[in-house]
Amino acid sequence: MTRFALTLEFDGTPFMGLQRQAHGPSVQLAVEAAVQATTGETVTLHAAGRTDAGVHALGMRVHVDVTKEIDAFRLMEALNYHLRPAPIAVLDCEAKPEDWHARFSCIGREYLYRIANRRAPLTLDANRAWQVAQPLDAEAMHRAAQVLVGQHDFTTFRSVHCQAKSPEKTLELLSVERVDQEVHIRAAARSFLHHQVRSMVGCLALVGMGRWREEQVGEALAARDRAALGLNAPSAGLYFVRALYPGE
Amino acid sequence: MTRFALTLEFDGTPFMGLQRQAHGPSVQLAVEAAVQATTGETVTLHAAGRTDAGVHALGMRVHVDVTKEIDAFRLMEALNYHLRPAPIAVLDCEAKPEDWHARFSCIGREYLYRIANRRAPLTLDANRAWQVAQPLDAEAMHRAAQVLVGQHDFTTFRSVHCQAKSPEKTLELLSVERVDQEVHIRAAARSFLHHQVRSMVGCLALVGMGRWREEQVGEALAARDRAALGLNAPSAGLYFVRALYPGE
Repeated sequence: MTRFALTLEFDGTPFMGLQRQAHGPSVQLAVEAAVQATTGETVTLHAAGRTDAGVHALGMRVHVDVTKEIDAFRLMEALNYHLRPAPIAVLDCEAKPEDWHARFSCIGREYLYRIANRRAPLTLDANRAWQVAQPLDAEAMHRAAQVLVGQHDFTTFRSVHCQAKSPEKTLELLSVERVDQEVHIRAAARSFLHHQVRSMVGCLALVGMGRWREEQVGEALAARDRAALGLNAPSAGLYFVRALYPGE
Repeated sequence: MTRFALTLEFDGTPFMGLQRQAHGPSVQLAVEAAVQATTGETVTLHAAGRTDAGVHALGMRVHVDVTKEIDAFRLMEALNYHLRPAPIAVLDCEAKPEDWHARFSCIGREYLYRIANRRAPLTLDANRAWQVAQPLDAEAMHRAAQVLVGQHDFTTFRSVHCQAKSPEKTLELLSVERVDQEVHIRAAARSFLHHQVRSMVGCLALVGMGRWREEQVGEALAARDRAALGLNAPSAGLYFVRALYPGE
């Protein structure tokens, strides 16, 4: 048995999420089917993160265990062949020690959120960004974001469906930057609560529009109450960028 | 009657091209229908350039003549409303003098061609770039491209369906640059022949792969023979970027 770590890029638009769902297509189901088509084996995919319907990945890390003798490059090529036409690509494939685990060995996760700050509807970037017509003050958003960095109880920014044992997380980075007509929000932490990034982005967007004072982000955090959330940003703007592992 | 200049962005994937076709959807048909829905008038759209099926635009300029009294901003908003869900957006709308013509007043056209130089199939950039698995030498491509700059007979790089009277064109710019995993080719001229950019890109890609010597681009040009063309690059990587007009 060999444990293979895969780096996946996917367009989340047609999927109900990364993880297998009872009803509807998922990235997990598509990759497991591609492994079965390649090796004849029924495998279970484990991922660094769960992503919601419509959320994209530039570099999601997952692993599968394969009994058949196959080298990493051939496995990658075969998976990419069998994944077509699903918008999932294996960017990298590597044999790992059996105690390496895509989820439990992961020590850092990075997300990017793209806001298209323009009046016109999106065409080439439809389903790739959140279109916000009102001009956003990215510098105010960045300042307001800094109160969230560090170790906090993020109950306000947590989905009611979140399965994490504790609402305490340590946010390592939350930066906001204007890039031409877009506003990019980057978030990094060891791990995140369900909906945490989208909830933080939603509140920062309210600051950017001038509908919230900068201080209201800290007040929402201190409330530790989901009802204090201003806005949950839509899934289409969110990208899982990278998962970090010891020694990589 | 007011002549309105529109700046259009569109995803060319679902269209048979910008210009009206007997069979199938076109950008022209969609915009003309949106004008009719807004004003009740039957108009004819004139564009700075014709684009093939699958070719995109970041800033195509077109014009329509409208009799109804309407200001430019309201027209833009109404067109964007009626264009949904077609992937066409009006980025700008401006009243122009009646002798301003989107096609005949245009003194410059700029294109971008995106090559995704990677082994894995495209997901988020499917239909947005040409995927070339073989590593490309962008510097060699740039050097080879310079023989095409200037005034030449571009018969080799011209579709057999091209309707231009003369195969003589003056290419002002043809640059090739690596941007991370992509290779970007930019082309500028007063006007282009049908398929000229895609044909030039196809030959430069052969140079980038090492299948053509750099000098072969000049030899193909000198042949003045479509049969000397190495490769016509696919439409999905091509973007009409900008049209230039006197005094803008």
